[in-house]
Amino acid sequence: MKLARYEQGGEARIGVVAGDRIVDAGAGSMIDLIADWDTRGDALASASTGEGLPLASVRLLAPVPRPGKIFAIGLNYADHIAESNMETPQRQVWFTKAQTSINGPHDPILIARNAPFVDYEVELVAVIGRRAKHIAAADAAAHVFGYCVGNDVTERMWQHAGPQWALGKSFDTHAPIGPWIVTADEIGDPHDLAIRCFVNGEQRQASNTRHLVFDLWQQIEHLSAAMTLEPGDLIFTGTPGGVGAAMEPKRFLKPGDTVRCEIDRIGAIQATMVAED
Amino acid sequence: MKLARYEQGGEARIGVVAGDRIVDAGAGSMIDLIADWDTRGDALASASTGEGLPLASVRLLAPVPRPGKIFAIGLNYADHIAESNMETPQRQVWFTKAQTSINGPHDPILIARNAPFVDYEVELVAVIGRRAKHIAAADAAAHVFGYCVGNDVTERMWQHAGPQWALGKSFDTHAPIGPWIVTADEIGDPHDLAIRCFVNGEQRQASNTRHLVFDLWQQIEHLSAAMTLEPGDLIFTGTPGGVGAAMEPKRFLKPGDTVRCEIDRIGAIQATMVAED
Repeated sequence: MKLARYEQGGEARIGVVAGDRIVDAGAGSMIDLIADWDTRGDALASASTGEGLPLASVRLLAPVPRPGKIFAIGLNYADHIAESNMETPQRQVWFTKAQTSINGPHDPILIARNAPFVDYEVELVAVIGRRAKHIAAADAAAHVFGYCVGNDVTERMWQHAGPQWALGKSFDTHAPIGPWIVTADEIGDPHDLAIRCFVNGEQRQASNTRHLVFDLWQQIEHLSAAMTLEPGDLIFTGTPGGVGAAMEPKRFLKPGDTVRCEIDRIGAIQATMVAED
Repeated sequence: MKLARYEQGGEARIGVVAGDRIVDAGAGSMIDLIADWDTRGDALASASTGEGLPLASVRLLAPVPRPGKIFAIGLNYADHIAESNMETPQRQVWFTKAQTSINGPHDPILIARNAPFVDYEVELVAVIGRRAKHIAAADAAAHVFGYCVGNDVTERMWQHAGPQWALGKSFDTHAPIGPWIVTADEIGDPHDLAIRCFVNGEQRQASNTRHLVFDLWQQIEHLSAAMTLEPGDLIFTGTPGGVGAAMEPKRFLKPGDTVRCEIDRIGAIQATMVAED
């Protein structure tokens, strides 16, 4: 199933996407729906069989507008490690994106006043489905509710001006996700998905999630050794090579640029870069 | 005013603390109350004049159980920078603590299975009152709702096993805050508060917030240049010297240890260390 949030009459709704249409599935919180999925999922599926609306006629919203946690792994594709002039980490490297950085799948991405070195990073994003700690890698799949496409937008000067990346990863609008959540049962093993990013139509990143250094199950085991994962928490699983900061010369995003991130079997998100007022 | 959350009959309540008593001020979300303070604050103050309960008879809860963001500044007291063998940063160094690391002011702090190198860091914590971006330092005071005591509990092996501190700072129970929020009007300038930490009654940290390298107003200006701050967001303002990792030999917290963090004019939080099952 493809679960989206969208705007209708100024209200946020949850909808089920089928082909080029979206069928209303009620109001309410996506996180609550995920948490109650075992009891509400079947009913929602059977209630969402109407004609619905043309998908193209609605504004899609971020499927999880306020995740409790957003953790993102760094240096997790070999080609991105090489272009970053780094060594393959022996241990997973994790940073965070602020809750307020979430952005709709097609909403403008801001280039902030004092932070012009904005870069794209297409990533597979996993949405946690169950509250749990100490999840073994072998059991991790059962804790994933679904997947979406994410862009781990990064301001490179703020990222590297000091030792910690948290601020450079947390600018408003710098975590667009969507266009919807594809439930885990539709994807099966998420480690064979083609993933691409385009800027103004030019392909910049192209890889496959089979090239993850640490796979999603290892990621969930590692994160949940430290903290309880909860429904709606997001895991950004790493970006492949091809980021603007690694080009010669470096090419950062400019106002008016269009950034498209896509993953086979999930979908695409696309945004225009806009200078902050 | 001192605003607390506490448990009564299995329900979370908001209360106003007056001396050694706590007066019920209703149920509901502390973040909503902070966001609506301009309209609800006066009514709450005048309604909270009863006898209440003995403060010692109730279990206090974390005053903000699920902050949208928890940002913490590193290396922000000269003596802690020296003991860490670091240079004074030219630019503020920020990391995050996960929402799920919040803990009640007197609840046990866990030493997780695979993470025994747990250390204390007493800190002044500011609670944001207003949603805003690009806040100038000169205007920052108006955006602070109040203050509490925090312990930026840190697992040193996880903190330093890689380049990013986020996981080592985010273990469950590793962000105890409280014992209540003292509203900003009662504190005035927060840069002259004595701050101390004791382990089993032995003083380990003792300083004053006047020794912050970057003061709170500069911190708010810097953070809000990147992201929108919102009611209930927490800022951990840095820890002074005296952490266990800097002692010779290093002294980490053991099961059964008692950690007390206190700040003059705010109060004290105190917890027992417990090994995770």
